[in-house]
Amino acid sequence: MSLADTVVLTEVGPRDGLQNEHQPVPTEVKVELVNRLAQAGFRHIEVSSFVHPRWIPQLADAEEVFAAIERRPGVCYSALVPNERGLERALRARVDGVNVFMSASETHNRKNINKSIDETFPVLQPVVSAAKAEGLFVRGYVSTAFGCPYEGRISVDQVLKVVDRLFEMGIDELSVGDTIGVAVPRQVQELVGHLAWRFGLERIALHFHDTYGMAVANVWAGYGAGVRKFDGSLGGLGGCPYAPGASGNVATDDLLYLFEQLNVETGVDREQTLGTAAWFERASGLRLQSHAMSICRKEAERDA
Amino acid sequence: MSLADTVVLTEVGPRDGLQNEHQPVPTEVKVELVNRLAQAGFRHIEVSSFVHPRWIPQLADAEEVFAAIERRPGVCYSALVPNERGLERALRARVDGVNVFMSASETHNRKNINKSIDETFPVLQPVVSAAKAEGLFVRGYVSTAFGCPYEGRISVDQVLKVVDRLFEMGIDELSVGDTIGVAVPRQVQELVGHLAWRFGLERIALHFHDTYGMAVANVWAGYGAGVRKFDGSLGGLGGCPYAPGASGNVATDDLLYLFEQLNVETGVDREQTLGTAAWFERASGLRLQSHAMSICRKEAERDA
Repeated sequence: MSLADTVVLTEVGPRDGLQNEHQPVPTEVKVELVNRLAQAGFRHIEVSSFVHPRWIPQLADAEEVFAAIERRPGVCYSALVPNERGLERALRARVDGVNVFMSASETHNRKNINKSIDETFPVLQPVVSAAKAEGLFVRGYVSTAFGCPYEGRISVDQVLKVVDRLFEMGIDELSVGDTIGVAVPRQVQELVGHLAWRFGLERIALHFHDTYGMAVANVWAGYGAGVRKFDGSLGGLGGCPYAPGASGNVATDDLLYLFEQLNVETGVDREQTLGTAAWFERASGLRLQSHAMSICRKEAERDA
Repeated sequence: MSLADTVVLTEVGPRDGLQNEHQPVPTEVKVELVNRLAQAGFRHIEVSSFVHPRWIPQLADAEEVFAAIERRPGVCYSALVPNERGLERALRARVDGVNVFMSASETHNRKNINKSIDETFPVLQPVVSAAKAEGLFVRGYVSTAFGCPYEGRISVDQVLKVVDRLFEMGIDELSVGDTIGVAVPRQVQELVGHLAWRFGLERIALHFHDTYGMAVANVWAGYGAGVRKFDGSLGGLGGCPYAPGASGNVATDDLLYLFEQLNVETGVDREQTLGTAAWFERASGLRLQSHAMSICRKEAERDA
């Protein structure tokens, strides 16, 4: 018997997924989604966002969702927080984790946050400091870390420059995002190699989108390079903002297949997760796109 | 400047793809598909099958397709051949390559070929010998090499037993198939390691289906383990016979993205391949499922 290896999956469907879906999802469906995900075994769930509702109307009910969810012990219910005003809302909503974000690409950062990269650090620093002072878990997202819709490929140096500052600020965990899903495995190996050397890998998570169908390969490459934290979205919820209808976040349920077959512990029940996905399809009217869900649908049709 | 690495892609869409599509495709569309694929740069195209039309009515027009295609110099136009009767038809059709097939799983072989594994070798031996005597390229497929719908996971020993016999027969190339798309990268590394040690990798191709979304990761794992030959199907044509509607063969166009980003030479023009896929969708009425095609469709909608 060898010791089972373990990975930590952060389920970002309720935030990163729903943020990119056009169809509104009722608050009570979001609440039940989060509760079911926690029951299935997820210990990190990104529940919603405290970005101003003008920018993300899909998640305007963040307060209501946080007020209504069950709080299972041991589960970190986190939210995206852009600035100090967002943090005030998040604290009142009793989040367990605060997720700050910025881009490795100057142009993408400007389009997304309306600030240069250097102007963004002073906005995030007080958020990180205050959240840490409250004893909360703080995650930093660095987006477009492999490629940018405006600037193309992003250099490792550019990513490291941003990551250095985020760790200096005091974040507990970094999530490196392939926001537009263009990365290939060798890029992942290269960037992870640099991150490992500089920061160690305990605090590094990888966040892939499946636009070009590379996401699972990139997870495997990251796993092979020593990363043990991955983000995913139930049923691949989300779509890609730059190519609507194309694949969104890598599907958590597909990652559960991968890790189950590799005998890697996730702490998450795959069957229960698929049941949650099937329930969510019915409750929301959204169509989920994971491979696992396609197989479930076909098996259900065959057995009917 | 480093030397560019090179891989060889075998396009199996016209055979393995169309064999698993319910909707009939007109012969002239098949012919143009093959011609366009050759123009795009594919040097190995599996054109059709000489399995009895009773079993594969979708490919009953194999003779007509072979009679009508252009023959570009340097392109190997191959066909699936089950036995000596099939070989006679294939020779009359002037194939360049003969592809024999059997399963690593006893049960799957029996269900597919109606013979035990040991009973299959004497059927294939005269096909291989006669094809070699005619100077043709002979490829052996070993299917369900990673998992079987009836027997579950297939042991490496079981696969090697079949592969040993196929190489003894005189095949030029072996294509190791994950017929139902259940493999994960570590299995690929393990099996490829054994094959490399025993046979070298020059004659080994990998053939993945994307049922569980693992195919690109498996290609990457195979590439990392030294394999330089991969099968793919235009636009992911084919579907999975065991889960209709689920993903079929790994999409050649997605592999072209992977290798282009890795600076690995395929000799195939990705834009021309995508153009061929778009043309084929219109001409056949079939919907292609690759990530690359989803992106093309969305870009076309956006630009319209």
